[in-house]
Amino acid sequence: MENFTFYNPVRIHFGRGQIATLKNEIPLDKRILLTYGGGSIKKNGVYTQVKTALNGHTVCEFGGIEPNPRYETLMQAVALIKEHNLNFILAVGGGSVVDGTKFIAAAASFPGEPWDILTQHAPINSAVPFGCVLTLPGTGSEMNCGAVISRKNTKDKLVFIHPLVFPQFSILDPTTTFSLPPNQTANGIVDAFVHVIEQYLTYPVNSPLQDRFAEGILQTLIEEAPKVMRNPEDYAARSNIMWCATLALNNLIGCGVPNDWATHLIGHWLTAGYGLDHAVTLAILLPSVLNHQRAQKREKLLQYATRVWNVINPNPEERIDAAIFKTREFFENLGLVTHLSNYKIGEEAIAFVTKKLNEHKQITLGERGDINLEVVEKIMRTSL
Amino acid sequence: MENFTFYNPVRIHFGRGQIATLKNEIPLDKRILLTYGGGSIKKNGVYTQVKTALNGHTVCEFGGIEPNPRYETLMQAVALIKEHNLNFILAVGGGSVVDGTKFIAAAASFPGEPWDILTQHAPINSAVPFGCVLTLPGTGSEMNCGAVISRKNTKDKLVFIHPLVFPQFSILDPTTTFSLPPNQTANGIVDAFVHVIEQYLTYPVNSPLQDRFAEGILQTLIEEAPKVMRNPEDYAARSNIMWCATLALNNLIGCGVPNDWATHLIGHWLTAGYGLDHAVTLAILLPSVLNHQRAQKREKLLQYATRVWNVINPNPEERIDAAIFKTREFFENLGLVTHLSNYKIGEEAIAFVTKKLNEHKQITLGERGDINLEVVEKIMRTSL
Repeated sequence: MENFTFYNPVRIHFGRGQIATLKNEIPLDKRILLTYGGGSIKKNGVYTQVKTALNGHTVCEFGGIEPNPRYETLMQAVALIKEHNLNFILAVGGGSVVDGTKFIAAAASFPGEPWDILTQHAPINSAVPFGCVLTLPGTGSEMNCGAVISRKNTKDKLVFIHPLVFPQFSILDPTTTFSLPPNQTANGIVDAFVHVIEQYLTYPVNSPLQDRFAEGILQTLIEEAPKVMRNPEDYAARSNIMWCATLALNNLIGCGVPNDWATHLIGHWLTAGYGLDHAVTLAILLPSVLNHQRAQKREKLLQYATRVWNVINPNPEERIDAAIFKTREFFENLGLVTHLSNYKIGEEAIAFVTKKLNEHKQITLGERGDINLEVVEKIMRTSL
Repeated sequence: MENFTFYNPVRIHFGRGQIATLKNEIPLDKRILLTYGGGSIKKNGVYTQVKTALNGHTVCEFGGIEPNPRYETLMQAVALIKEHNLNFILAVGGGSVVDGTKFIAAAASFPGEPWDILTQHAPINSAVPFGCVLTLPGTGSEMNCGAVISRKNTKDKLVFIHPLVFPQFSILDPTTTFSLPPNQTANGIVDAFVHVIEQYLTYPVNSPLQDRFAEGILQTLIEEAPKVMRNPEDYAARSNIMWCATLALNNLIGCGVPNDWATHLIGHWLTAGYGLDHAVTLAILLPSVLNHQRAQKREKLLQYATRVWNVINPNPEERIDAAIFKTREFFENLGLVTHLSNYKIGEEAIAFVTKKLNEHKQITLGERGDINLEVVEKIMRTSL
């Protein structure tokens, strides 16, 4: 395996009733900004549990963080922090709220124009401490230090990663996910699945343990997904999905192995340009990426076919075909259709995506850096 | 799965050449106590690498920490810290040096009699910060906050666990393990293997991901062990063993599942009373524990047989027998014989061990608390 550094100081409280631990996690002298999304937490009881646990704290609220959280929105929260002199943030919601909160935390004490954190990798020297109550598993943001932020007026969607934006703690109560709409549950499962694939389906570097951990997450997602889609209040299955999603992107399985991330980086521009759900972009692109890169990924694709999908076909090319087919079928069975035409998006998207990739110098993608703009175009053509 | 809290802030630097990161990990104003064991680090080049990286730091040295580190020895290091006003410890060695260092770190600022930390669970309010350069994988001490400390004059061997004694960082360079004697390599593998078993082979709680992570570590240890025994300088195999051993006991795989630990707690007294290597006590006791608890552990034993050892016998009792046989065979193939008589220890050990367990109130062992002193006697009789 390759050399690596692993560090992840996030404290996880997992299980029923864990929202009550908030009162021990946040000292009483903290002045809290409570961030959330579209307001579902006020319908499913999570908001009440949080407010009960924070009884006695000073709490300001900032709702309305949208999916693919926008710079324009988040800067309003930054203003609120400054205005009220707040010194802790509690994110209550899914990955977008957590990602958005990471940006708010970094931007609140950033001396210059915070957009530079995304475009120029401007260095961050401090961040407002924050915690998280997760209500939608998928992004893994609850246990990592990365975030993806969009900007409406420039149609940008960019990543930033910094150790100062690890949550101090994250509370994962699977019952908070019972009331999710089916498409959000499905999106989260696909997102977690593809996070694992990005760190696993590359080329072999003699890392049998990382491989088995990755395969373990994939197999568990495949087994548990139909259960939660059938019965949204299956606590055990919700728990397993939630823990899988966290471990899919908390730095662990990617340690010491090559990482791909081409599907994500191309997909971000489909969301930025056409408003497709993040997971939908992954479901559309991944089968095409795997098919195009089948020579470069051959050994791992064969291993994936055998170990994850139990394909026993002795013909290697057919085994790879079967693995890609089953991957697509898994996404489709969850309700995500996997061609751009299903979303009324045509060839014009290729020009937009390649222009944006070029503009942000994302032109050598994949674990070998061999996915250039020409290859992106080919991949996208087979996704039409 | 069961509710849990997971927290592990240890920074891991893994791979060739990582000892050089020491100079960034320890600020120049720190006054360091360098702790080590019998001196092998002076023969294999590790000491030189460490001293080079610490060029410019104030460093005192304390060597001679023995296997199963003793209170009497460690208190000498505590005196040294006080005398020279040291404020950082760097442990360089295997699990005993790291465990011993955790006790030194806690004892150095403990107001009362530090032995009470072990016998009375006396609360710790501070500890000297420390880091670790690991040279012998097995105990997992490099990425957890537990330690096992012995006392010669009372023949005690006791555990303490406290979040203040997580290492700040641990450096894992597999090349430092090339020169280990074969029995130490084998002991480390057996120790890591049994750590996984203690957290996996209990009863099912619908935790498919934890199961697969545990099985992944076991399968990898089984595959890689013969490689390092055959070729001690096989970097890839040494790396895989080292990372397996760390993940076998860093709190992750035990999250949300029942834990056993009977084999360890009984085994500690065989070491304390008769000087057996820790791993040897595990190799002797585990097959007997599994056999005696086969009804209580039935479902997981069958899963272990199938998934870890690929036993396909349709008769369940025979499948369990085969799994236990293969476990014992794995230990024996590594050179650890698995009966007390092989070490010239007879029935008298039963009286000593049960007396000590009783004295320290370790009388309801195992994941169900059903291993009382009578059961311990039965288990030990089948280990004679």
